[in-house]
Amino acid sequence: MTIKSAITALKEQLGGKVSQNASVLDQHGQNEAYFPVTPPDAVVFPASTDDVARIVKICAENNCPIVAYGTGTSLEGHQLAIRGGISLDMSQMNKVLAVHAEDMDAVVQPGVTREALNEELRATGLFFPVDPGANASIGGMTATRASGTTAVRYGTMRENVLALEVVLADGRVIRTGTRARKSSAGYDLTKLFVGSEGTLGIITEITVKLQGQPEAISAATCSFPDIESAVNTVITTIQMGIPMARIEFVDEMMARGFNLSANANLPEVPHLFVEFHGSENGVKEQAESFGEIVHDMGGSDFKWSDKAEDRTKLWKMRHNAYYAQKAHRPEARVLNTDVCVPISRLAEAVTLARAEITKLGLVASMVGHTGDGNFHVGISVDHEDADEMERTRAFAHKLNQFALELDGTVTGEHGVGLGKMKYMAEEHGEALSVMVDIKRTLDPQNILNPGKMLPGN
Amino acid sequence: MTIKSAITALKEQLGGKVSQNASVLDQHGQNEAYFPVTPPDAVVFPASTDDVARIVKICAENNCPIVAYGTGTSLEGHQLAIRGGISLDMSQMNKVLAVHAEDMDAVVQPGVTREALNEELRATGLFFPVDPGANASIGGMTATRASGTTAVRYGTMRENVLALEVVLADGRVIRTGTRARKSSAGYDLTKLFVGSEGTLGIITEITVKLQGQPEAISAATCSFPDIESAVNTVITTIQMGIPMARIEFVDEMMARGFNLSANANLPEVPHLFVEFHGSENGVKEQAESFGEIVHDMGGSDFKWSDKAEDRTKLWKMRHNAYYAQKAHRPEARVLNTDVCVPISRLAEAVTLARAEITKLGLVASMVGHTGDGNFHVGISVDHEDADEMERTRAFAHKLNQFALELDGTVTGEHGVGLGKMKYMAEEHGEALSVMVDIKRTLDPQNILNPGKMLPGN
Repeated sequence: MTIKSAITALKEQLGGKVSQNASVLDQHGQNEAYFPVTPPDAVVFPASTDDVARIVKICAENNCPIVAYGTGTSLEGHQLAIRGGISLDMSQMNKVLAVHAEDMDAVVQPGVTREALNEELRATGLFFPVDPGANASIGGMTATRASGTTAVRYGTMRENVLALEVVLADGRVIRTGTRARKSSAGYDLTKLFVGSEGTLGIITEITVKLQGQPEAISAATCSFPDIESAVNTVITTIQMGIPMARIEFVDEMMARGFNLSANANLPEVPHLFVEFHGSENGVKEQAESFGEIVHDMGGSDFKWSDKAEDRTKLWKMRHNAYYAQKAHRPEARVLNTDVCVPISRLAEAVTLARAEITKLGLVASMVGHTGDGNFHVGISVDHEDADEMERTRAFAHKLNQFALELDGTVTGEHGVGLGKMKYMAEEHGEALSVMVDIKRTLDPQNILNPGKMLPGN
Repeated sequence: MTIKSAITALKEQLGGKVSQNASVLDQHGQNEAYFPVTPPDAVVFPASTDDVARIVKICAENNCPIVAYGTGTSLEGHQLAIRGGISLDMSQMNKVLAVHAEDMDAVVQPGVTREALNEELRATGLFFPVDPGANASIGGMTATRASGTTAVRYGTMRENVLALEVVLADGRVIRTGTRARKSSAGYDLTKLFVGSEGTLGIITEITVKLQGQPEAISAATCSFPDIESAVNTVITTIQMGIPMARIEFVDEMMARGFNLSANANLPEVPHLFVEFHGSENGVKEQAESFGEIVHDMGGSDFKWSDKAEDRTKLWKMRHNAYYAQKAHRPEARVLNTDVCVPISRLAEAVTLARAEITKLGLVASMVGHTGDGNFHVGISVDHEDADEMERTRAFAHKLNQFALELDGTVTGEHGVGLGKMKYMAEEHGEALSVMVDIKRTLDPQNILNPGKMLPGN
């Protein structure tokens, strides 16, 4: 009972769905983080839930690790088969199985990407709102509890997944939840699997909530003398119940990056980028009210637009934050990390982070989903420079410490994977033992994404 | 190791916090459902998390059942100590521990009631939105995943609990979640305990989200020739993104009940009662748009008001639905049950329910949180009449079957308790075994609310 015997059995039973082609293995060992390339022993491409159940049973019989693979856009190494075994590539399970327009939900296979789903929904007047930037798969977004710029209005994957089909570690198939919008019938297994990073089961079907395309959208940008006034603007806007669809914080270095990469011509000070969804009058009124708050808080350069082209340009620039970060040091790589704190501690967290960046002599810029207290630091770093890598690691460690000291979490949306595992004990204390107990109950052989999320696993 | 030895030890260690007074026992054995009075062997009134941990340890050592008790307003018998043991009355743990206005959250002990919390929040401009009607405790609402009229806008307890402190079955104390608005750090234990009905741990502290008091509120009522047109009005309103704060369906019998109990002077046909929260202009515009949809769908009697007194009168009447149900047969008791289906199936579900009520010769009326597809049937029944009780049970069974056949759930917000346990296997299939596994892992002695939620437990 070994990985080798598992692969032999998989080839016998699934034939052409199993690949050991070197370039396929290599591709599935790549990552967008700083981990070494880690190819799996084989890549398997299931076409159905039945396939997944058969694969999992074979792997269970042979004690072979299984790591689910979406689009490989994880920033914390979730998809790496660090103990060998198979990479379960869900890209062939890419069908939108149903769209229920009246109920505003859709049932999809895990390999459907966010953009493909929205393309399919275009004619319905509905859209799927969760937007982590990358064109990730819905399965991967579910498994990592992803969110992004629109979470302040529409929630994260936690709020947007209604029901799941999951293959358990022994190959049994379960369904969690129903298409009813709410239920009090038993433990919320849906929410247990959302964010479980492939360690409790393989997600084979996802029922997601949809939203109506807003009648009108407006966007605004503004600048601030300091981070406190930007954050206070956001706090007041939320308290007044002005329903922002996005509210992104951009620090002075990121503003500079946008100038370098996109000729943005922004003053190199903290900014907010905001979007409102609603009726024609509604978005106008919301933008006006927001503009008044900006003014009261000492902000300036308030620009408002309800033109689609201005908005597209703005969010394209924001989504290309990576290139702005890259522009500071074109020869370096950019490492991205995220933490999340209560919004009242956000200015403090960003200020502490900036001081640490300066102290360690690093080049880094920050953007954040301010409404959620979630922010990202992109560090431009030369991977070949051991000393700089060491300082980058020291910074990342400090950043996580700050988040925990400020009542926050070490990851708002990127997930634990390999990168944040070492903070799990400190963040969760005794509750971590409950997670470990659940993992051992549902995956006693530890074949599902072993070595991830839970230390010692 | 018996219940008796547990009570002896509890009395030794907690003295005056333990009561075996007959009237106290009797009060804790009452219920608002149809279950016989079931007094516990003792009632214990903890004053702190430390007390709860000590009590649970003593009970674990002596194999004594522990049933947490909030305000006793459960409709499915959750709070009954059906296997004897202690009722853990949380009413002394009734402090609001912190209000973080900037972060829009509050940390409360489980015995704080919904109305007490909102009273405490009055000066802050914030409120806690979840409103199940009864003045339930926040602990009980968390444990049953409660919701109510405002869930369509603000979500259920699932969406409104950020973090918990929980005493596990062996007396260990854990914290789940942080005050950060979102996190991808590990399994979502918060959501596992929300709705676990006291079977996985005792909730001793709850961090809830708050909302800003809206600048303006408007309310509207309208009537419809049939249930389909009422439901289609709601579907269209949601699809258009008009943000209703409440949207309640009232059937013709309930309209008649309001006429009898509150001189409402409503036409005895299906109605919608709606509320909008927003800016002055916003709520006006929303009500107007809604009025147009009502008209397009064949509705009439559209009445709109932004006066507080009209609104208070409307929702007082709605919250007093029990008295309206009672008014049909003042000598009978009212049994209330709830199911939840996808909104596209709601008209069908209500129609099937009405046909069954007629067929069985029962007197019953319906109200629903239409935006969620959740509705309640209140059956006026003479408990002494065995045949009528039998027909009532037959109806309840049919209603649950309809909900499952229509892709729904047997309970949208009342919970499982004793009443819905028999439908858990059918609703969840193989997933029920995962729930049972989790229960056995976290409460291997089965001392936490035994005999509830999970059949055979």
